[in-house]
Amino acid sequence: MKIGFIGLGNMGSGMAANLLKAGHQVIAYNRSQAKVDALAARGAVAARSVAEASSADIVFTMLANDDAVEAVTFGDDGVLASLKSGGIHVSSSTISVALCGRLTAAHADAGQGFVAAPVFGRPDAAEAAKLFVVAAGEAARVEQVSPALDAIGQRTFVVSDRPNAASLVKLSGNFLIASVIEALGEAMALVAKAGVDKHQYLEVLTSTLFNAPVYKTYGGLIAGEQFVPPGFASTLGQKDIRLVLAAAEELDVPLPIGSLLRDRFLTLLANGGADLDWSAVGALAAWEAGAPFPAVSR
Amino acid sequence: MKIGFIGLGNMGSGMAANLLKAGHQVIAYNRSQAKVDALAARGAVAARSVAEASSADIVFTMLANDDAVEAVTFGDDGVLASLKSGGIHVSSSTISVALCGRLTAAHADAGQGFVAAPVFGRPDAAEAAKLFVVAAGEAARVEQVSPALDAIGQRTFVVSDRPNAASLVKLSGNFLIASVIEALGEAMALVAKAGVDKHQYLEVLTSTLFNAPVYKTYGGLIAGEQFVPPGFASTLGQKDIRLVLAAAEELDVPLPIGSLLRDRFLTLLANGGADLDWSAVGALAAWEAGAPFPAVSR
Amino acid sequence: MKIGFIGLGNMGSGMAANLLKAGHQVIAYNRSQAKVDALAARGAVAARSVAEASSADIVFTMLANDDAVEAVTFGDDGVLASLKSGGIHVSSSTISVALCGRLTAAHADAGQGFVAAPVFGRPDAAEAAKLFVVAAGEAARVEQVSPALDAIGQRTFVVSDRPNAASLVKLSGNFLIASVIEALGEAMALVAKAGVDKHQYLEVLTSTLFNAPVYKTYGGLIAGEQFVPPGFASTLGQKDIRLVLAAAEELDVPLPIGSLLRDRFLTLLANGGADLDWSAVGALAAWEAGAPFPAVSR
Amino acid sequence: MKIGFIGLGNMGSGMAANLLKAGHQVIAYNRSQAKVDALAARGAVAARSVAEASSADIVFTMLANDDAVEAVTFGDDGVLASLKSGGIHVSSSTISVALCGRLTAAHADAGQGFVAAPVFGRPDAAEAAKLFVVAAGEAARVEQVSPALDAIGQRTFVVSDRPNAASLVKLSGNFLIASVIEALGEAMALVAKAGVDKHQYLEVLTSTLFNAPVYKTYGGLIAGEQFVPPGFASTLGQKDIRLVLAAAEELDVPLPIGSLLRDRFLTLLANGGADLDWSAVGALAAWEAGAPFPAVSR
Repeated sequence: MKIGFIGLGNMGSGMAANLLKAGHQVIAYNRSQAKVDALAARGAVAARSVAEASSADIVFTMLANDDAVEAVTFGDDGVLASLKSGGIHVSSSTISVALCGRLTAAHADAGQGFVAAPVFGRPDAAEAAKLFVVAAGEAARVEQVSPALDAIGQRTFVVSDRPNAASLVKLSGNFLIASVIEALGEAMALVAKAGVDKHQYLEVLTSTLFNAPVYKTYGGLIAGEQFVPPGFASTLGQKDIRLVLAAAEELDVPLPIGSLLRDRFLTLLANGGADLDWSAVGALAAWEAGAPFPAVSR
Repeated sequence: MKIGFIGLGNMGSGMAANLLKAGHQVIAYNRSQAKVDALAARGAVAARSVAEASSADIVFTMLANDDAVEAVTFGDDGVLASLKSGGIHVSSSTISVALCGRLTAAHADAGQGFVAAPVFGRPDAAEAAKLFVVAAGEAARVEQVSPALDAIGQRTFVVSDRPNAASLVKLSGNFLIASVIEALGEAMALVAKAGVDKHQYLEVLTSTLFNAPVYKTYGGLIAGEQFVPPGFASTLGQKDIRLVLAAAEELDVPLPIGSLLRDRFLTLLANGGADLDWSAVGALAAWEAGAPFPAVSR
Repeated sequence: MKIGFIGLGNMGSGMAANLLKAGHQVIAYNRSQAKVDALAARGAVAARSVAEASSADIVFTMLANDDAVEAVTFGDDGVLASLKSGGIHVSSSTISVALCGRLTAAHADAGQGFVAAPVFGRPDAAEAAKLFVVAAGEAARVEQVSPALDAIGQRTFVVSDRPNAASLVKLSGNFLIASVIEALGEAMALVAKAGVDKHQYLEVLTSTLFNAPVYKTYGGLIAGEQFVPPGFASTLGQKDIRLVLAAAEELDVPLPIGSLLRDRFLTLLANGGADLDWSAVGALAAWEAGAPFPAVSR
Repeated sequence: MKIGFIGLGNMGSGMAANLLKAGHQVIAYNRSQAKVDALAARGAVAARSVAEASSADIVFTMLANDDAVEAVTFGDDGVLASLKSGGIHVSSSTISVALCGRLTAAHADAGQGFVAAPVFGRPDAAEAAKLFVVAAGEAARVEQVSPALDAIGQRTFVVSDRPNAASLVKLSGNFLIASVIEALGEAMALVAKAGVDKHQYLEVLTSTLFNAPVYKTYGGLIAGEQFVPPGFASTLGQKDIRLVLAAAEELDVPLPIGSLLRDRFLTLLANGGADLDWSAVGALAAWEAGAPFPAVSR
């Protein structure tokens, strides 16, 4: 398959490389050219514009946020204007449910397809083709792009025929991760103040009921106070909690832990934590309990 | 070893049976005689009183709450009065940190040992000797009782030389489970209102970052709204959150999710949910979002 | 002074009438003509378009929300296009801080003035010229419009030379009122469940430390469960909490009570409470404590 | 009337003096003798023991907390043992609902009366006989003590024939005050970060809907960051929130703002704020938003 790929960041580079490995033709575009060249060295065609990347049958976008996806899609010579009739835009970025709805409608109006296919996993999983893909869209469209999705992940879950649902599932997953960060932060603040070693405590948890990657990864970061460099910056975490709350507001669903997380991220940002990993939220309970603020000078 | 065992409920029966299987002599006591007889049929000695059970070198207590442990320990002919000098009381009940402290002091005054050894796991794990044991106490005492702890669990974690710490770790574990229940409840309320199937959603979660028993077990109960019969009643959940908040208050540690859980359990109890499983807390977000109250008539 | 007035709802009608009473010329516009006619009968000039109303030296807008203010201001033949150079737009609507910023910039670009002058008070206070006006803008502009502000209120507070500040103060005032509603709701749920009469309880409060209109008004509505017809609909309350949270997010200020109120309003809306007065939020604590949901069938 | 008075602290001294002024005989006891001497100089009889003070027809207790009231009441030669049959114990301390229940039962068993009569007001109001008294107990008993209650306050509210209710109303009043402190703290953190002067902001509020002593008093303390010396220490505030939450737990009433306040007070205590006025809770929102911690070195 001929696949356009727009957005070669930490995640996108690995994903595009795996499309190449799986035998697809990839025509890649990125705002800064260096990433494109690196991928071209592995066999990709270098696109000099979004329009050029959008000349393929399928075009992936893997970008930082709503603004970036909007700019690339709706701009002059954007994906929407450039994709041929019957072409499919696959959005793997974590975007708002509202934007997902607008993209669905706009591509439908243009006689194009739209599949939301956000992914779970950090850059190492993207590199290793071990992502989990959450896909939603018209069944026939999802079917068409499934070879590409199979190439970037270890498993694809098709959750709905409406793209919105994939966006919501992805956002809710980040909400659940942030909930784990906060809950672990509270529990560790408590046992540590009673003299229990945080790493040993984490060992107890992850050997028993909490034997899951999310507890190991984030528990380790919190116990070790390793918030720099950020794997996923607190500003991005804050954005995702904002998006999940906005989606919940549309549906009249109160989310008390979501509200708490909102306040936690704002506290982090207000005290100089914008460049910390989002797991630094897990240090705020200890801060309130008298420990120093994590790793930044106030 | 000769081991007294007081409290043959859902958990205690399995634990005592595993002590027998491991070759220990068990002298068992329970308030209702039928449970004692059942264990006697498997080789235990039937004790007719707490005092008789306390004639052993080591005596376990596995009871419902602080009140029961206090009654059995401090009462006339209780464990404290009956245990010989140098004997060790092993408390596997989930009790308050404050009572744990009182037991530590009282047994020390009496020249006896005290080891806190609460366990993680539900009755099936107790039956299968697959519990996780969190132990704390003077190193020599913990060493002495370790063969017994090995017989009831798959692994023992020694977290401190002060028994209080084991109690706190156990309570914090229940706090973390309840946090998962609440977070899953919020996420499921959200995606379900957007039309995503709850069971499929859970499949996505537990295949990816949330691949842990706690998500599978409680996620399944929430998705299926299976809150009766209770595996662990909401009244017990409420008690444990109360105890963890009390312990945190002693240490001046604010716990925002703990506070939320407190309110959630009270809401559950106020609306007829006392006999539901504690995972019914995970149905309250959906209730607030317009779904019916779980499984009880208001 | 010749004053345009756009928006003759519950609040606007009274305000415009008081401008007339104070001797000003008023040229009034409203989407539905009946309100205009009623005011014309009291001496106003009936404008048939926004543009016509904007031909005055000063033009007030008193509309329901951001969308309405945007439509009237930025639309073809809107306030911005119609107001002469040196004219002043006085915005008394409760609008977002973000929109307030855009209006400030747009009018400045057009060589016009912009004064934010939101008001505190319900329709009866608007009728009686007893509003409290919170004004902000360039000192000279505020000075120019002050005779008009004096005509509609009992007192004007000039809080800043930046219009944004007035919007924020107004929104924060509604946040504080909603906080009172929630706090009273919790306290009343508690004492009522203990058998204390809610009206007598309110008498105790308002005779002592809580001797303020906000406690009397909202306490009475909550105690009497008088949520229909709405004086200020829960949908508007929800909007204002959303706006105050958005403004706080811009400034990185966490607002835990604001977050709680957000969840409360969503709960109200999710259960059929959109047409209730916003004080119905004060019935939710009792609902969680086992009382029926306020005044709507679920 | 002959009235015993136990507890001559900041509040009790003024109350006892007002009983004297009203023409009652007062026989006064305090742990430290200096306060007794000062009152004796104004005409009181100095009691050298609790028992001696309890020889009167009516005995007031005005003490710091549950422990102090228990010690004085149930101790050897305590109020309970010393009061004659038919005598009445009037408890004006802010105590737990649970203790209130125990006192009611114990005095009834002893053929004595018990009236709960906690008060609203700070020491200056006690001095000026301007307290508000919230009384509950058997009608005949309340009637008997009403001349004494009239002497210490400007108004007495009889809220129930069960003493518990007075205790709950008093605690809920402190909960409402603390809610105001927190809500004002959040609002001020927000507007101040936008550049609005806090004192002017408070002027807007207290001139309008929030024209009540509680807003003026606490708003002034928060705006001026005047938390030392404490008029009412944060440790006492924390105690009262604990008591109101405990009473609510007994009745299965969730109190989300109460839960938030619990966490706020623990944060204050954990960071060295034990000696600050409880209004320092109103500085925590600003702290989270990036301002320095109030007035103590961390």
